[in-house]
Amino acid sequence: MLDNQLAEKQSIIFQGKAEKWEVDSSTTAKNCKNYIREIVDTLDLQPNPEKPVIALSIGDPTVYGNLKPSEETTQAVIDVIREGSCNGYAPCVGYDKSREAVANYLNQNGSKLTKNDIILCSGCSSSLEICITALCDAKKNHNLLMPRPGFSIYRTLAEAIGVTVRYYNLIPEKNWQIDVDHLRSQIDQNTAVIVLNNPSNPCGSVYSAEHLKDVLEVAFTHRIPVIADEIYERLVFPGNSFHSTAVLNSGVPLLICGGLAKRFLAPGWRLGWIAICDEGGAFEPNVRKALISLSQRIIGSNTLVQGALPAILFKTPQSFHDNLINTLHKNAILAYSMLQNIEGLVPYMPQGTMYMMVELCFNRFPFSDVLQFVIKMMEEESVFCLPGDCFQISGFIRIVLTVPEDLLLEACKRISEFCKRHIIK
Amino acid sequence: MLDNQLAEKQSIIFQGKAEKWEVDSSTTAKNCKNYIREIVDTLDLQPNPEKPVIALSIGDPTVYGNLKPSEETTQAVIDVIREGSCNGYAPCVGYDKSREAVANYLNQNGSKLTKNDIILCSGCSSSLEICITALCDAKKNHNLLMPRPGFSIYRTLAEAIGVTVRYYNLIPEKNWQIDVDHLRSQIDQNTAVIVLNNPSNPCGSVYSAEHLKDVLEVAFTHRIPVIADEIYERLVFPGNSFHSTAVLNSGVPLLICGGLAKRFLAPGWRLGWIAICDEGGAFEPNVRKALISLSQRIIGSNTLVQGALPAILFKTPQSFHDNLINTLHKNAILAYSMLQNIEGLVPYMPQGTMYMMVELCFNRFPFSDVLQFVIKMMEEESVFCLPGDCFQISGFIRIVLTVPEDLLLEACKRISEFCKRHIIK
Ligand SMILES: Cc1ncc(COP(=O)(O)O)c(C=O)c1O
Ligand SMILES: Cc1ncc(COP(=O)(O)O)c(C=O)c1O
Repeated sequence: MLDNQLAEKQSIIFQGKAEKWEVDSSTTAKNCKNYIREIVDTLDLQPNPEKPVIALSIGDPTVYGNLKPSEETTQAVIDVIREGSCNGYAPCVGYDKSREAVANYLNQNGSKLTKNDIILCSGCSSSLEICITALCDAKKNHNLLMPRPGFSIYRTLAEAIGVTVRYYNLIPEKNWQIDVDHLRSQIDQNTAVIVLNNPSNPCGSVYSAEHLKDVLEVAFTHRIPVIADEIYERLVFPGNSFHSTAVLNSGVPLLICGGLAKRFLAPGWRLGWIAICDEGGAFEPNVRKALISLSQRIIGSNTLVQGALPAILFKTPQSFHDNLINTLHKNAILAYSMLQNIEGLVPYMPQGTMYMMVELCFNRFPFSDVLQFVIKMMEEESVFCLPGDCFQISGFIRIVLTVPEDLLLEACKRISEFCKRHIIK
Repeated sequence: MLDNQLAEKQSIIFQGKAEKWEVDSSTTAKNCKNYIREIVDTLDLQPNPEKPVIALSIGDPTVYGNLKPSEETTQAVIDVIREGSCNGYAPCVGYDKSREAVANYLNQNGSKLTKNDIILCSGCSSSLEICITALCDAKKNHNLLMPRPGFSIYRTLAEAIGVTVRYYNLIPEKNWQIDVDHLRSQIDQNTAVIVLNNPSNPCGSVYSAEHLKDVLEVAFTHRIPVIADEIYERLVFPGNSFHSTAVLNSGVPLLICGGLAKRFLAPGWRLGWIAICDEGGAFEPNVRKALISLSQRIIGSNTLVQGALPAILFKTPQSFHDNLINTLHKNAILAYSMLQNIEGLVPYMPQGTMYMMVELCFNRFPFSDVLQFVIKMMEEESVFCLPGDCFQISGFIRIVLTVPEDLLLEACKRISEFCKRHIIK
């Protein structure tokens, strides 16, 4: 067929509207929603042109340039590139030596993992995608239980594959501990997995071993496996300890997800992992096989970063980690002390991570909801925070603690001005 | 609950076999199969201990160290790491400047893409996963049409999401051209997409513009969108030309998949892309939105490689590409000339890529099938080739052309010895 014939045919078809060729997308794609974007995109955000924007919304620690990967980390990748042996395909689950490094690294938290328990993935998001897809089945009417407030990717990934999401509540006044009774009440026979997130985004909570045991006991009693999102492992402030679910002897088969995004400040590098933690053998053989099969779809993660993993995980000096925690903690104290003096706001001091939740006293403001509060604050003060709605909770905003101190200070001042201006006396 | 109580409880539960906690995996995971591994793992492969193994099976061009990314390519990544601005999250679809670089790079083939048409993914496998998941819907009983022989990842990805796979035949005697009548006969009202792969793995075929137009006309007539896997674009031997489906004015909405794995010899870096090629607008708004939504699940690809893309794509000297083609072409000629003199074998000269298909004349060998041929050749000659069964065709083996010349020569000699020894006079 000649080009001009085709063009003619095409024009006949496309001229009549009835004839328009429109390809539909799949149910999966339609159900795959980014809940942060869904909400933020509906907001008419117009910053005050007089004031430079301060984004307290972006969960990317590197965005202002004050936080970056260690010299040892970047050098490790350069060494691997120079060395030249990590350009080909790695096994889908990752290089043996890189998996071994992750096992040893995680064992610093007290676990007893071996390289065979580790699967490397393209970021922690991909780890979560693989775990959720391995355990949850729309055909069996499965549901997934996740925290509220919680990180919305669990919901995105579950709903995309047709799996229903249920929520268990966190209790703000108890440092966002899990409401264990509520958790129990949300379980039914179709609950395929409970997702835990400790330390938590968006709450900054860090759970005690006792609390985690209480939660895991519920999972154990109901025989529900757990996905433990521990991407913020060890990002805890002085006086708190991180306890990995891996060391609690719970008897619950666990898939622990993590990666380089947070503690190593390299989110763009897309290196995540799954640790299969399953002394009782409940994941054998089905789930282990499932995780491996699913990792074959996209053939794992970047080999340069994989090759550098042993050095990244073991040569990054303790001072780097200490500095990061120090910076985040100082910022948390700064923000907390300023925001708690603002009438109409109730900040909740985090015990770790990069975030702080702040409650709005609604009877004190003339705004119909948090969204309006957020829009107005952008309009007047050019400060933007994510509404709690992005994390399935209303009445709160989340602020990030990774911005440079002076910007955080300025942002808190502006928030203060804003609230003063609008508070109902 | 105390640890010892839990341990007790656990032991009660795990001691009785009836009580064993065994978590099932999802239907998706069970349906997600690696067809190469499924076949190869069943083979009892015992090389001859007297002879070092030569693997003509591995589709990784870097595996023997003779082929590697250009100096410019590796330096580009080092520069990006040093520069330090590509460590954070990129947009899920990729950095603007990287998408623009890909558009300009692909436009060297004659297309008119802009950065908005490009989505960066974690390897071409991830590009294919996103495209197939966007277009194919198990709920609508969709099927996907792919070549036979063909690269099995299309099947893996489609079946994982519950989509049926159908095959259209390629014709060995016509340089593996598509049997257009057969293609037409395989289409039904549930056919959601046709996958084309040009240049092709495993055949090494390179299609003429005329042939591609004939194929696209079928898609156009039946209003079926096309996924064009062009990961081997421009990897064609002298005397042949690569024609991108993007430039053929077919009127068919196309998703073109590609990446750095082959022409730039960096498969482990996991940088792939999708180019949306859709002058008629049939993908608007559904499919475009679907691709973007699905890219949000794992947040795209490694940012260091993304940042280096403009330099990789435009600073790699032509001599690098020429050398690669030269090496592959020389190896193809070497293998072809040697294998065509072996009684019982019929090699098919490829026009490009890194592979050659070889037919076995079954009435000339005392083997029940190709698998037995392959096992025996490993046992006696320590040469391993993939059986065509890995690509859904029987009676053939595929050999890779990326191994060093001396190894290829040695391998062909051993294949020759092997066939001489077993041929039925
Ligand atoms: C709780 C939680 N889990 C997972 C992720 C995703 O991590 P990655 O960037 O490695 O995909 C994030 C990122 O913000 C997160 O906050
Ligand atoms: C035809 C074809 N498509 C896609 C791929 C996958 O490419 P990537 O490594 O970028 O995922 C391959 C790899 O061998 C291939 O042969």
